[in-house]
Amino acid sequence: MRDRTASVRSRTLRLIRERGQVSRGEIGQVFGMDKKGVSLAVERLLDEGLVSVSGHRDSRVGRRSETLSINGAYGVSLGVDIGATHVIGVLSDMAGVVLDRASWDIRPGLPIELILEQMRAISSKLLSSRLVSSKHVSGRSSLPGARGSAVSAGVCVPGFVQPDAGVSLVAENIPGWKNVPVRDVLQRELGIPVSVEDSSRALAAAELWLGAARGVHDFIAVDLGYGIGMGMYCDGSLYRGGSWKAGEIGHTVAVPGGLPCACGGNGCLETIASGKAIARDARMGIQEGRSDLLRDLTKGSANAVTAQDVAVAAGMGDPFSIGLLDAAGSAVGIALANAAAVLDPSLIVLGGGLAAARSPYLHALATSWERHLMPALRAEMKLVVSGLGVDGSARGIALMAAQSMVEQGTAAAS
Amino acid sequence: MRDRTASVRSRTLRLIRERGQVSRGEIGQVFGMDKKGVSLAVERLLDEGLVSVSGHRDSRVGRRSETLSINGAYGVSLGVDIGATHVIGVLSDMAGVVLDRASWDIRPGLPIELILEQMRAISSKLLSSRLVSSKHVSGRSSLPGARGSAVSAGVCVPGFVQPDAGVSLVAENIPGWKNVPVRDVLQRELGIPVSVEDSSRALAAAELWLGAARGVHDFIAVDLGYGIGMGMYCDGSLYRGGSWKAGEIGHTVAVPGGLPCACGGNGCLETIASGKAIARDARMGIQEGRSDLLRDLTKGSANAVTAQDVAVAAGMGDPFSIGLLDAAGSAVGIALANAAAVLDPSLIVLGGGLAAARSPYLHALATSWERHLMPALRAEMKLVVSGLGVDGSARGIALMAAQSMVEQGTAAAS
Repeated sequence: MRDRTASVRSRTLRLIRERGQVSRGEIGQVFGMDKKGVSLAVERLLDEGLVSVSGHRDSRVGRRSETLSINGAYGVSLGVDIGATHVIGVLSDMAGVVLDRASWDIRPGLPIELILEQMRAISSKLLSSRLVSSKHVSGRSSLPGARGSAVSAGVCVPGFVQPDAGVSLVAENIPGWKNVPVRDVLQRELGIPVSVEDSSRALAAAELWLGAARGVHDFIAVDLGYGIGMGMYCDGSLYRGGSWKAGEIGHTVAVPGGLPCACGGNGCLETIASGKAIARDARMGIQEGRSDLLRDLTKGSANAVTAQDVAVAAGMGDPFSIGLLDAAGSAVGIALANAAAVLDPSLIVLGGGLAAARSPYLHALATSWERHLMPALRAEMKLVVSGLGVDGSARGIALMAAQSMVEQGTAAAS
Repeated sequence: MRDRTASVRSRTLRLIRERGQVSRGEIGQVFGMDKKGVSLAVERLLDEGLVSVSGHRDSRVGRRSETLSINGAYGVSLGVDIGATHVIGVLSDMAGVVLDRASWDIRPGLPIELILEQMRAISSKLLSSRLVSSKHVSGRSSLPGARGSAVSAGVCVPGFVQPDAGVSLVAENIPGWKNVPVRDVLQRELGIPVSVEDSSRALAAAELWLGAARGVHDFIAVDLGYGIGMGMYCDGSLYRGGSWKAGEIGHTVAVPGGLPCACGGNGCLETIASGKAIARDARMGIQEGRSDLLRDLTKGSANAVTAQDVAVAAGMGDPFSIGLLDAAGSAVGIALANAAAVLDPSLIVLGGGLAAARSPYLHALATSWERHLMPALRAEMKLVVSGLGVDGSARGIALMAAQSMVEQGTAAAS
């Protein structure tokens, strides 16, 4: 859902966010604006304190040309990532610099009310810590117009969302999670505007603005965790699909007629290659006595074994765990090769816990991806692991919220 | 590769083309323009003869509001679709109304020089027939400014193209077809500007402007023929991918480690579900004596059996042929369910010879697609057969060429 009529102000701000540093000349070039038009747009952003002069770049004619960046000190933004196994909160400045973070692991199946309680608690904690650091935040700016007082917040949940209503419609991997009005819940708690998005799309935004996808117009970001999701940018814009449901690579069919999936289908990629599936297979393996190491690592509580335990065991050379991760990663490689043949992204970024664990899963994934990708696509396409660790989605939703607040002019001074 | 700086003129023209009929009010609404801005843009298009007043629509306040359409009589456009088994040419007016057509079936493996010769011959033939009908074309218009003399042309080839250079880089299913400068070849022949695109993208454009996808922002068009390709619109714009190679659903993996494919990979969808694969399996079936009907239909020339023959035999109840088409269609259904889970299109249009044949292939495809599509996506997504028959790609490239000529201001008066 692309906004054809986005204002010059919003588009200029997005360009600066995407490129990190931009000269006035570049702005004019990209939007086909003359010097005067650029000047008007830039002066407004400078006056508002949204951007700052970040340096100078030597232009071709030998003169030094001013470069502009997002003014981080304009305010702070909170991002909360709710998953089946975690609630992660990040407080960043408006340019994405992390000021504080907090995360809580949760057991899959935790009652929804308790998850929302975690969300509220983590949000309040981070925003109150901001009071301590706000002096520091303001202190970073010596700009006229920089207010340092804007506050925005965003929540991302893996699954279908309705961003305009602020509702998380379904999260297949959080039992019972349906039509949860996360925006209202958090807005009541904090009294500031709250954005809502799918976690994989928030990850993709983070990769564009802060990570490996800076300057890349066509890329996909894959969230490899308890579930598997995907966010994508097409021609420089976040793509959400015809009914906001794009990116369900976890529910592409890996094994026709295979195991039943939480989504109601059969043989989905998530049934064999997600953290959830790996944990399920590990549990069975322990019960069947196929891995003493895994049994010892989980100290008899085989029911609570996680994909992270399997990665640890694999790192210690456990053949059963290596085999499990190898099979799972290979399946993801095929699904990604297929998505890549359809979409032709310039870049694929792997995020989430399973990517961060750097286990045999990753190696098998990359090998399988390369083997199954159409040969003509192999030369130009890149596959990389996210440098944002497990905080990518939280950092991404924080900046999406910041951008949305500014574009909608709903900045809340606190 | 979206053009962020497309002029108001181009965007307005595209909107009219997409919607068929548009009121001034709608134009203002879509682009956020005031009455005066709309008026300027529309007057210019009317003066140039590119659009015409097509009727009046009752507006809500009871006044009648003028509607605008593409002025077909502005000129003619030629579209040529080169495939592994055909060269199809269509001459249409600027609004897409077909004035003449010609098609030649060719044997897979025909030398490239002969294919290009067919292209030149078909193009000259259609453009000279236009001289006969041009009086008729001009006669349809009573508009000031309508010139009726503009001529554009386009060629589409299945595979990788470089539209800006007018080169068809690779067509896997046309042996030896590499870096063919189709634009130069045809431009030399005709002396008018020539556009070049991938056939599946041309089909998608035809579905948007003339077919089932009118008014749909997010859809995919699948070309099911000797090869299998896909074109897609994302958020209302044709999407070509990061290196112009998007849409290779025919080279997604259907059978890991399966048969070698012309692309250099293994087990691609095309190796089991394309017209080429069906013909190969039919040939083997005849040789193995598994279908007397198919043997009789091909009158002993089993080597020349085509997927169309198999569709005919299936229509006559031949179990072997039915089984073949059923397996092939089912495989396409899974690949399409997977592409749909990733992209979330509102609509999937099935074009090409295998769709037009209405054989068990189609039924198996639809059944398999619905069974393997993520359940949450089933309610809103539509799967339809193209109403444009086998001429979809040729009609699409004709209009893409017309649009491109007008946008680049390279209209050639003939």
